[in-house]
Amino acid sequence: MAKYQQLVDQLREQIEANIWQPGEKLPSLRQQADQSGLSLMTVMHAYEVLESQGWILSKPQSGYYIAPRAAALRPRLATQTVERLEQTDTNSFVFDVLQATRDPAIMPFGSAFPDPELFPQRQLMRSLVKVSHNLKPTDALNNLPPGNPELRKILAQRYAQQGITISPDDIVITNGAMEALNLSLQAVTEPGDWVVIENPSFYGALQAIERLKLNAIAIASDVEQGIDFDELEQALQRWPVKACWLMTNRQNPLGFTLSNTRKEQLVALLARYGVTLIEDDVYSELWIGEEKPLPAKAFDRLGDVMHCGSFSKNLVAGFRIGWVAAGRHAQRVQRIQLMSTLSTSAPMQLALADFLSTRSYDSHLKRLRQTLAKRKQLARTALRQVLPADARISDTPGGYFLWVALPEGINTTQLYHLALEQGISIAPGQLFSSSEDFRHCFRFNTAWPWDARAEAAVEKLGQLIKQLHP
Amino acid sequence: MAKYQQLVDQLREQIEANIWQPGEKLPSLRQQADQSGLSLMTVMHAYEVLESQGWILSKPQSGYYIAPRAAALRPRLATQTVERLEQTDTNSFVFDVLQATRDPAIMPFGSAFPDPELFPQRQLMRSLVKVSHNLKPTDALNNLPPGNPELRKILAQRYAQQGITISPDDIVITNGAMEALNLSLQAVTEPGDWVVIENPSFYGALQAIERLKLNAIAIASDVEQGIDFDELEQALQRWPVKACWLMTNRQNPLGFTLSNTRKEQLVALLARYGVTLIEDDVYSELWIGEEKPLPAKAFDRLGDVMHCGSFSKNLVAGFRIGWVAAGRHAQRVQRIQLMSTLSTSAPMQLALADFLSTRSYDSHLKRLRQTLAKRKQLARTALRQVLPADARISDTPGGYFLWVALPEGINTTQLYHLALEQGISIAPGQLFSSSEDFRHCFRFNTAWPWDARAEAAVEKLGQLIKQLHP
Repeated sequence: MAKYQQLVDQLREQIEANIWQPGEKLPSLRQQADQSGLSLMTVMHAYEVLESQGWILSKPQSGYYIAPRAAALRPRLATQTVERLEQTDTNSFVFDVLQATRDPAIMPFGSAFPDPELFPQRQLMRSLVKVSHNLKPTDALNNLPPGNPELRKILAQRYAQQGITISPDDIVITNGAMEALNLSLQAVTEPGDWVVIENPSFYGALQAIERLKLNAIAIASDVEQGIDFDELEQALQRWPVKACWLMTNRQNPLGFTLSNTRKEQLVALLARYGVTLIEDDVYSELWIGEEKPLPAKAFDRLGDVMHCGSFSKNLVAGFRIGWVAAGRHAQRVQRIQLMSTLSTSAPMQLALADFLSTRSYDSHLKRLRQTLAKRKQLARTALRQVLPADARISDTPGGYFLWVALPEGINTTQLYHLALEQGISIAPGQLFSSSEDFRHCFRFNTAWPWDARAEAAVEKLGQLIKQLHP
Repeated sequence: MAKYQQLVDQLREQIEANIWQPGEKLPSLRQQADQSGLSLMTVMHAYEVLESQGWILSKPQSGYYIAPRAAALRPRLATQTVERLEQTDTNSFVFDVLQATRDPAIMPFGSAFPDPELFPQRQLMRSLVKVSHNLKPTDALNNLPPGNPELRKILAQRYAQQGITISPDDIVITNGAMEALNLSLQAVTEPGDWVVIENPSFYGALQAIERLKLNAIAIASDVEQGIDFDELEQALQRWPVKACWLMTNRQNPLGFTLSNTRKEQLVALLARYGVTLIEDDVYSELWIGEEKPLPAKAFDRLGDVMHCGSFSKNLVAGFRIGWVAAGRHAQRVQRIQLMSTLSTSAPMQLALADFLSTRSYDSHLKRLRQTLAKRKQLARTALRQVLPADARISDTPGGYFLWVALPEGINTTQLYHLALEQGISIAPGQLFSSSEDFRHCFRFNTAWPWDARAEAAVEKLGQLIKQLHP
């Protein structure tokens, strides 16, 4: 065995045995060389191998440190290890699951979108027809980034209704929230930078991080309280984190909504460490209760919270219109958009601006929330009847997802495949984490009509789970 | 001065004095340490600094080599040098120029888009109205990547009319050609990879390369012959190039169209080195002559040419619909799109499919080509009258750009600023190259009505040039 490999193995064993704690500093190259009697080159080679495998990481002008573990993703570091393969498999698996939800013959419990029949089809059509009759040659020019001025003004007014002051100039209209989130992440990071996400989290965050060659630290989130602030602060102390991407309202997949107090604490904590918050708030309109919860953006004093919203989950999916209230990063977001997709389509922006200014968006949302709440209740009851007694179903208000934790030992990826053979899709825990922590969980979309077909599908799902139950 | 800095300075002087040629291998770390009497760590530090400044580069398992010069961009390597600042300035300058062309009070000779009044506004409106009346809740789902099946079939049929066999399955509909080109580049590269572009080239290529942290080798292109094949092959021999991004028809900004023979040779040459061709063909419909020129894609035997097209320059800019015929990379492109913008908007895809299948697209294109040819002729004549006798104006058929080379010594960036004060925009050579080679050139958009305002603007431009002429 090569000398450097002996050192690699030795250090790896020590890290696994907790002799070195995550965040702790390793001996310098020279110290290590002196201690081990190996040459500097050999030590350097060993450190490079450990770094490429994600065990340690180098900080410029500082030295080598033990990398965060278990909860940490290492898409960029772990280029040749099993972790990387698993990550790629997960990515590929996400596409398979998405593909399955497209087939109308498949019961779409695994889908991320609500039943589009719940959207105000006729009113949307009328707005689009009206806009189509008034297309102008100059439309393309007048709707370039930051986007349609009327639409941005309406969005700013909606923020103002919640007491949040946001200038229309800080809002950039995007090709859906997916582009908003991706542009935000690109605006504040470079490849190799560190980003905090939640565990579990929206798989789009995992994919964006891998695509942009970032390093992620996944902090545990809890169905009640959301992200663990102590762990978050430890991570911020230890790593040069640039951004934190998370959901504050009806988190996907867990469903929790942070309290105003916790949102304010979160913004203050991140501000203390100079870390940008990328707030994915695509379910913001799907609340239940007295009033719409505030976003964390409401507590932003420094313009360093990038609040990403969308119409795709509550009004129309196919228009592909989202936005980001990007604060002091607004110009940079615009520029990256100009370089990557140039702009959002003019007629879609115009049609939405028309809809929002002339139709009854808020009445639609009220009806939508009521219908979703009923469907969720029905689905929850049906699931409860077929699931093992020790299965837990999340009970968070609003949104349309249920998060189901089956007894440990039941593998929901296996369940996914079995269910798919029966024409039923679910979103298994594997999609939402690169750790093994949620392999017994799945996300269940309740935003579909609760009919005989849905009931039969839930019945069938229950049978499959029983078969897998040891 | 630190020891490593002495070595840095010494090697830099040697490189500048051509003691080391681009592509040549440097002594290994150990050899250099032995020669210089410096420690390995010091040598390594010096090499790292030189690499970070773009003077040298490391090839895995091989060693350090002198980086290509002059024509080479080093956006990733030259993080702290003047080159990097210039690059950033250029990027910022591109946005300033784009911004200026948005103002209707400014004469848009610097714009990249044709006069939208040339587009079949009424027919487009009718298609969009028709589609709007028939919106379906399932539209979003049915138009996800790779995109609307009908639209992909029509595109495949248009390729077939030219004798090119492309499966609709290999076509991905995108948010304009800008997204098609960016997705293509992402599909075949990782940060740090090498890409060949032309000098001069479309500024979007320069921006994409910087954004994706790639290294670029810019090969000289000639107004008659296009890219220099000898230089291209030398670059392919020396550097681990992954992709070559260029234009084969009515290249932007020079205007040339490669002959079929040269297109075939280009594809064969790149195939020999396993390099993907990303073919930007957004002006493909704006030809003049007997028949539409083939794309290089026509000679692709391996599915390794990614042919990017768009409707934005010849039918409608505001819909933001483009595509890539991505060959064997089609699935990867789809997946990156799903992760970055999810999809192109459904109504826009449907409206275009309707327009193309029911309206007279080819008659429109014929009229458009004739009008553009006339306008270009008028603009050329007008420019000739006001330019110095030793200015050269490109005379390439088709498209709507003229490439003007003023006498050396006239700085067109300066001209740009002076002209803008007079309400006239041009696209100065600086936009199209990170080298200084085209600082006396500018691109002139002739696709605007040739009226008294335009004539007065050209007159004024001529006066400004005379003022700058030594």
